[in-house]
Amino acid sequence: MIHSEWLKVPGAQLDSTAQAAAEARQAVLTKPAGALGQLESIAIRLAAMQGKEKPTLEQVRIVVFAADHGIAAEGVSAFPQAVTAEMVRNFANGGAAICVAARELKASLEVINLGTVINPGSLSNVSDQRIAPGTASFAKQAAMTEQQLAQAMNIGRQSAERAMTKGMDLFIGGEMGIGNTSAATALACILTDNAVEDLAGPGTGLDAKGVSHKVAVIKAALDLHKSQIDSPVTALRYFGGFEIAALTGAFIACAQMGIPVLVDGFIASTAALVATRQCSGINDWLLYAHASAEPGHKHIMKALQAEPLLDMGMRLGEGSGAAVAVPLLRMACALHNDMATFAEAEVSGNL
Amino acid sequence: MIHSEWLKVPGAQLDSTAQAAAEARQAVLTKPAGALGQLESIAIRLAAMQGKEKPTLEQVRIVVFAADHGIAAEGVSAFPQAVTAEMVRNFANGGAAICVAARELKASLEVINLGTVINPGSLSNVSDQRIAPGTASFAKQAAMTEQQLAQAMNIGRQSAERAMTKGMDLFIGGEMGIGNTSAATALACILTDNAVEDLAGPGTGLDAKGVSHKVAVIKAALDLHKSQIDSPVTALRYFGGFEIAALTGAFIACAQMGIPVLVDGFIASTAALVATRQCSGINDWLLYAHASAEPGHKHIMKALQAEPLLDMGMRLGEGSGAAVAVPLLRMACALHNDMATFAEAEVSGNL
Repeated sequence: MIHSEWLKVPGAQLDSTAQAAAEARQAVLTKPAGALGQLESIAIRLAAMQGKEKPTLEQVRIVVFAADHGIAAEGVSAFPQAVTAEMVRNFANGGAAICVAARELKASLEVINLGTVINPGSLSNVSDQRIAPGTASFAKQAAMTEQQLAQAMNIGRQSAERAMTKGMDLFIGGEMGIGNTSAATALACILTDNAVEDLAGPGTGLDAKGVSHKVAVIKAALDLHKSQIDSPVTALRYFGGFEIAALTGAFIACAQMGIPVLVDGFIASTAALVATRQCSGINDWLLYAHASAEPGHKHIMKALQAEPLLDMGMRLGEGSGAAVAVPLLRMACALHNDMATFAEAEVSGNL
Repeated sequence: MIHSEWLKVPGAQLDSTAQAAAEARQAVLTKPAGALGQLESIAIRLAAMQGKEKPTLEQVRIVVFAADHGIAAEGVSAFPQAVTAEMVRNFANGGAAICVAARELKASLEVINLGTVINPGSLSNVSDQRIAPGTASFAKQAAMTEQQLAQAMNIGRQSAERAMTKGMDLFIGGEMGIGNTSAATALACILTDNAVEDLAGPGTGLDAKGVSHKVAVIKAALDLHKSQIDSPVTALRYFGGFEIAALTGAFIACAQMGIPVLVDGFIASTAALVATRQCSGINDWLLYAHASAEPGHKHIMKALQAEPLLDMGMRLGEGSGAAVAVPLLRMACALHNDMATFAEAEVSGNL
């Protein structure tokens, strides 16, 4: 792959001193040991990532990457391809779920158009970085050229660098792209050796017949290309999309710079899978927000040895599932930082 | 039971017009149908409770009820009984988990001492409504007299009335009382016909030997009293505690007045069970926040046909699990109220 030197840099080291200090603090807070469950382990992990005993999550950055997919021409989505550009306008106008969630969280939101088929017009809140009017159909050829893949991953990397410059405590990557569950399914099948039937699902709302057709399209494409796939990023180039490549680049760059990432659902988890397979030390920096209702997600979580925080039957994308989990992380930090210790409160320990 | 006329009043009616309007709104928001999972059904349920198409959850009331249990003398807890009063002081000083969570949520917090064995002293942030220095041991006699039960339930009812007067959108009831998982276990066994072994767990941290002893103590007490139990509130009087009775009274009163309740874990769910068994139309008003790590909780959820929102391995009480779930409810409302519709955003529907 061209321009790929940065992909050889491993994720940053966690801070074991801060982690030990956070573990010691959890042991003396006024509660039975372990009584806050996963909230305790979240606070300890964030302490190790942020290199301080008391982690904080005030500044949250959400970046939504939008792009179209050539594979949509094969009839693999319940919605027309025009929706990608229409939703970019909805992001710009603040009406989409992720916009509402970002306001609720007081998070900063960046939207990047990497290549919609339809030009959504000039939009003040959207960064126009279109690479091409969608990817090529992976039913026929590689979805991206090497140059396009490098460009898309670099756009993701640059979004992580902006988050770093702005002093963000947490990065969330969202996506929008009609057809992108097909791209993610193909990619995840190659990387995890799962059967297409196990990973393909309804996406935005296919019926059983639609899912069967989607399975057949993906199977044929895997057969066509699999002899060419010699690395995770090659799989990404053949089957991914601009937005999935950007997510992958962003996750790798965040881990390299030491920014905690909260990973959303099916598509974002597939990008996390590519990132962790491509580059060492990435998974230390990834927290998994929720179990998607898309049936294949659990197989991707298993491959990543990830235990998502929430299971609310969500399957929207845009980063919405991750956004919903942010208050849990903030609550974990607040409890960890602000509860009294047994000594401070003069409360007796256990018998 | 004395002074019990108010317990015959059923829960308020839900507003089916507001519910239908909320369902219609969910169907036209810019997302695939059902893509927000449980966040959609939460918004619709809150709309039906609040009687408006667009529900809101700004004003949250958390009331923590504290009391001691005679059964603690049988060695059924990992912590000494002094901890109940010590934690009341910790609540007053703002150092306990629920205090931190209330601040994080900008919720109002009320703490009521219904009867600690040790007098925690005069505390400006705690309402001193001590009925007695703890309940009697249900290993030997009924935990409460009829008068004490009526008084404790009424204290809970009055806390709900204050929440109503203050215009609260949501009520959370928390509890603190060394020994109270034993009381709740006995009570839930009587009401659900589960075996003590299925419901008894480590509570604040008993080892396997401790749990076995707890099981034996509860079994003997159930054998001693079961012929006397002729109603849910009689079971509450024999096996419950002042704080569990107050929670029961508060939940019934909230439902009667039409205030949504977010139910915490093992102890609060047992109070919810008594409330729903005693009085009709209560469960419509109860949302279940989280699956407690206390192993018996799942049986209580099953008896209540409840599906808790979170499963984070928490087992602290104080209302903490409910507090952690509040941002999910607020996010459900924000998404429901503020997302654009397909028509507003000019986004195409499905194919």
